[in-house]
Amino acid sequence: MPNAQWDGLLLDASLATMDRAGVPYGLIENAALAWKDGAIVFAGAQHDLRDAPERLAAEVASAGGALVTPGLIDCHTHLVFGGDRADEFERRLNGASYEEIARSGGGILSSVRATRAASEDELLAQSLPRARALLADGVTTVEIKSGYGLDLDSELKMLRVARRIGAELGIGVSTTLLAAHALPPEFKDRADDYVELIRTQILPAAAREGLADMVDAFCERIAFSPAQTRRVFERARELGLPVKLHADQLSDLGGAALAAEFGARSAEHLEHTGEAGVRAMAAAGTVAVLLPGAFYALRETQPPPIAQFREHGVAMAIASDLNPGTSPLLSLRLALNMACIELRLTPEEALRGATVHAARALGLDDRGMLKTGLRADFVVWNARHPAELCYWIGGGLAREVRVGGRAMR
Amino acid sequence: MPNAQWDGLLLDASLATMDRAGVPYGLIENAALAWKDGAIVFAGAQHDLRDAPERLAAEVASAGGALVTPGLIDCHTHLVFGGDRADEFERRLNGASYEEIARSGGGILSSVRATRAASEDELLAQSLPRARALLADGVTTVEIKSGYGLDLDSELKMLRVARRIGAELGIGVSTTLLAAHALPPEFKDRADDYVELIRTQILPAAAREGLADMVDAFCERIAFSPAQTRRVFERARELGLPVKLHADQLSDLGGAALAAEFGARSAEHLEHTGEAGVRAMAAAGTVAVLLPGAFYALRETQPPPIAQFREHGVAMAIASDLNPGTSPLLSLRLALNMACIELRLTPEEALRGATVHAARALGLDDRGMLKTGLRADFVVWNARHPAELCYWIGGGLAREVRVGGRAMR
Ligand SMILES: [Zn+2]
Ligand SMILES: [Zn+2]
Repeated sequence: MPNAQWDGLLLDASLATMDRAGVPYGLIENAALAWKDGAIVFAGAQHDLRDAPERLAAEVASAGGALVTPGLIDCHTHLVFGGDRADEFERRLNGASYEEIARSGGGILSSVRATRAASEDELLAQSLPRARALLADGVTTVEIKSGYGLDLDSELKMLRVARRIGAELGIGVSTTLLAAHALPPEFKDRADDYVELIRTQILPAAAREGLADMVDAFCERIAFSPAQTRRVFERARELGLPVKLHADQLSDLGGAALAAEFGARSAEHLEHTGEAGVRAMAAAGTVAVLLPGAFYALRETQPPPIAQFREHGVAMAIASDLNPGTSPLLSLRLALNMACIELRLTPEEALRGATVHAARALGLDDRGMLKTGLRADFVVWNARHPAELCYWIGGGLAREVRVGGRAMR
Repeated sequence: MPNAQWDGLLLDASLATMDRAGVPYGLIENAALAWKDGAIVFAGAQHDLRDAPERLAAEVASAGGALVTPGLIDCHTHLVFGGDRADEFERRLNGASYEEIARSGGGILSSVRATRAASEDELLAQSLPRARALLADGVTTVEIKSGYGLDLDSELKMLRVARRIGAELGIGVSTTLLAAHALPPEFKDRADDYVELIRTQILPAAAREGLADMVDAFCERIAFSPAQTRRVFERARELGLPVKLHADQLSDLGGAALAAEFGARSAEHLEHTGEAGVRAMAAAGTVAVLLPGAFYALRETQPPPIAQFREHGVAMAIASDLNPGTSPLLSLRLALNMACIELRLTPEEALRGATVHAARALGLDDRGMLKTGLRADFVVWNARHPAELCYWIGGGLAREVRVGGRAMR
């Protein structure tokens, strides 16, 4: 019985390492991947293995030529929420206007009511199947925002549920406090007072309890102004929390530049970002997070300035934006397809957007590529070439999902 | 030990029977569904059961309030094909023109080459996972077309594979001979000769071997003319085979009216059908099969004349159009979502389109509703209300799929 060095070794794989500049997808064919103690210890050509496979690892398997990618990273979701909005979806398609729906208590505030009313356990039970759906399609790290609580207790409850999802499923979870998502009904016409509540109570509590890895805001005419966003960001900076921003989705309020000014890891949506914003993002190294699910579901016609992101070297990430109103999208891979079909990204750009660039958007330098030293988060696909992940629409393509080397499905 | 009458009984379900005129979705809450010998023997309010459940059936289970619908019917697919076209998808997004791709052997003819080259067993092995993906999302009956063989042996091979998929998975399969899909390369500039081959050899052989339940053609400037389509249909009529038609997708050639003239069960695509075509379909009882997957993937902007279909009482069905070129869509439920988002159908119209109306498009009067006497094909969903099936984008919503009462997953 040989003394196995590695925990696992996968042979005969097509590795989309997403590393190796200049090689599309960083692809290595006839490759092997090995891991030990949750980290990758070998990712390269199989003929570079220095011993017989069975002497190298305790568990040896063949991928049979299948594609292997880094575990996908969904860097923008609102997947913790109470209830759903299928009724509203149906009413709109039956001709009800946004105003009628809002007057009858619909829209985001219906999600706020349902989220507030749910206990932490109920909220977890409602949200877990959504996280499982993402995982089943290859997501091993997910960002989850608050923002349907809009009061101290409910916002913290959402973030606790997000943390519990990570513990329950064994996947990576990054949490984001998005108390500045919408104005809660009890603060009607008193947005500045609500911003003060965020600054003085919600933000400090979330920081104290270690519940928020990042802070986000929705900077838009229908939400919070640039000045209000700035006050939230200033407080986040005082508390040592990195920021990101829902910016320029419906109009160019200079959100991208504001995010860049605060050294934001990412700015999201960006449909109406102008060239000044793009340049500011490039200078600050802010990642552009594109959300084609909302673009599709809202039937938007103005795409983000993708040519300018390319020209100025702004990294683009792709996320599901999973949320009950504008993107009830339970698959990141579908978002990749939409990024190609609707936003005309190439499959390689899309896949980088759900791996390396998504990791950067979350400030995680231990994942997003298949590379020695990084976490052994990877997916074996029922596919041979990475473009297939963007080409097929739906379907269960993930054959095996591993987090830190541990098989999740 | 009571003498159980029924094979199975499901309690505490929300039954979307798709029956009962005037009731949205034919919904019955607090309902029960029972089956025996593969057929439904009870579908109604639970309090109408005339004995204690355990005395009524051998197998009794609770749906826990979950939604139950008829098994979905995908009435238009091209799911049997060799290879895939992910490379072409990627090249297009990297800027290659359709002409460049066609010149280098891409497009439909690349699928023809791969389909011809595959043995029957290889073709089955490549196609089965696609049928399984549809089944996993609730499809219990699927129509499968030929049309990538384009010669006698290859067309029959495709239809045999379609039949074998039905036998292998235990789902319903309706086969359609679509030899008039594209002009095979060996008949370049000799379309009439190919139509003669279809009339004199392919159609009679398919009929003789019982391989084709229906006959279809692609009537379009880039494919077959109305006159050629007519000759194919005349021969189908002589052989006693019902017809359907790919009509008016890119231009109005009068395809819908032609289909109606031949009493076609359905006409499909129909983006450019004019009012005369709609009236002819209404008079003939021809179902309009809408294919939002291709509409989405091709970024079409001209929707089918849905208001006119509604006005003239033309039944609308929704199908995946699963094919390697214009709709690599592995989920009928996603097509329902696209029908709502892109074509503005209501969720109820969309679900009728994948149940009752799809059954009609295939000439199947034994399925498509939850109703005593019909096949016990049904799905238990991880959902409470039928609109959710159209609202959620992706995700594994099907909890249990039964065909003739037999559990498939
Ligand atoms: Zn968002
Ligand atoms: Zn078709």
